[in-house]
Amino acid sequence: MKKTVEFFFDYISPATYFAHFLLPAIAERTGAGIIYRPFLLGGVFKESGNSSPMTTPAKAAWMIKDLERLARRHQLPFKLNHHFPFNTVQLMRGACWLADHGDLKAYSDVMFRAIWEEGRNVADEEELKDILQGLAIDPLEFLEAVSNQDIKDKLRANTDEAVRRGAFGAPTLFVGDELFWGQDRLDQVEEELNR
Amino acid sequence: MKKTVEFFFDYISPATYFAHFLLPAIAERTGAGIIYRPFLLGGVFKESGNSSPMTTPAKAAWMIKDLERLARRHQLPFKLNHHFPFNTVQLMRGACWLADHGDLKAYSDVMFRAIWEEGRNVADEEELKDILQGLAIDPLEFLEAVSNQDIKDKLRANTDEAVRRGAFGAPTLFVGDELFWGQDRLDQVEEELNR
Repeated sequence: MKKTVEFFFDYISPATYFAHFLLPAIAERTGAGIIYRPFLLGGVFKESGNSSPMTTPAKAAWMIKDLERLARRHQLPFKLNHHFPFNTVQLMRGACWLADHGDLKAYSDVMFRAIWEEGRNVADEEELKDILQGLAIDPLEFLEAVSNQDIKDKLRANTDEAVRRGAFGAPTLFVGDELFWGQDRLDQVEEELNR
Repeated sequence: MKKTVEFFFDYISPATYFAHFLLPAIAERTGAGIIYRPFLLGGVFKESGNSSPMTTPAKAAWMIKDLERLARRHQLPFKLNHHFPFNTVQLMRGACWLADHGDLKAYSDVMFRAIWEEGRNVADEEELKDILQGLAIDPLEFLEAVSNQDIKDKLRANTDEAVRRGAFGAPTLFVGDELFWGQDRLDQVEEELNR
């Protein structure tokens, strides 16, 4: 049976940007499949009692330096986004919709790049429409889908499930029941997939 | 001029156990010197507004698994300490004393092992005396030294300095003004020492 890794993500998380673009090579090396699971990081923080690293000023300052060093090390064109933080609930609902009705991986690629490479304001409806059109997604169909109660419930259910299984931040990855937190634990994910 | 890395540590931190035993090989590969700087993690949390990862139950549960995986990966005989958490202020004052009057590195080796390999209760005075005697340190001289105001002030000054320079957790390492947080950023420390 093919091994799989579940990848719980929210576009708001810069660490998750790195994990998103580093994970495919690990999947390829280990022959594992990636299951993309959108969740809402704000909900995870609230339900787990954790808080954003950005709420501690010294940690936020370190994190900015750390992200720059990660970008250099992994040779990814990461840039801080001056619109951060913003609400990603609509984007994450869109991810839930596309998981069943489109190409979620391509959508994620574009969203992570728009936010963490191009510095775009994805909370702005005109910007969002422009990005969706680049993906050949009809903005009206998208906006209708993300206001659908089933889609809202799905995002909530993913978030609740992640917290129930032990999540408290992002990215959260599972290989079976083993929880891995952070882009800096992808080496452990690979080790687990090789066991 | 020889490069140096400042290593701010507190024996209470299990992540710092790993950094302590992994750092010498990095110093050797890069030709850098290690400056051992005892500080008090509780003071760092308080002054920076950060809190122990152990205060978020889901994070604490992940951390226990993570430490086991780190031990396996680095082939270090790490074990959880069932007396944790305990007050390390006396141990850290002892480290400040030994920085000028003895072999701080040897003392740190023994303290990290006593706590994070042997599961000893270092907060117990009899256990502490036993450990000190193994280091050929006179317990009475030690206890007198750590009650000295100069030593107390030195620990406080180290802690204040670390926070002023941006510390919010442990281990905290500096190469010049660049702050690195966590045993999982030793690769960045090595990269910086090689720049």
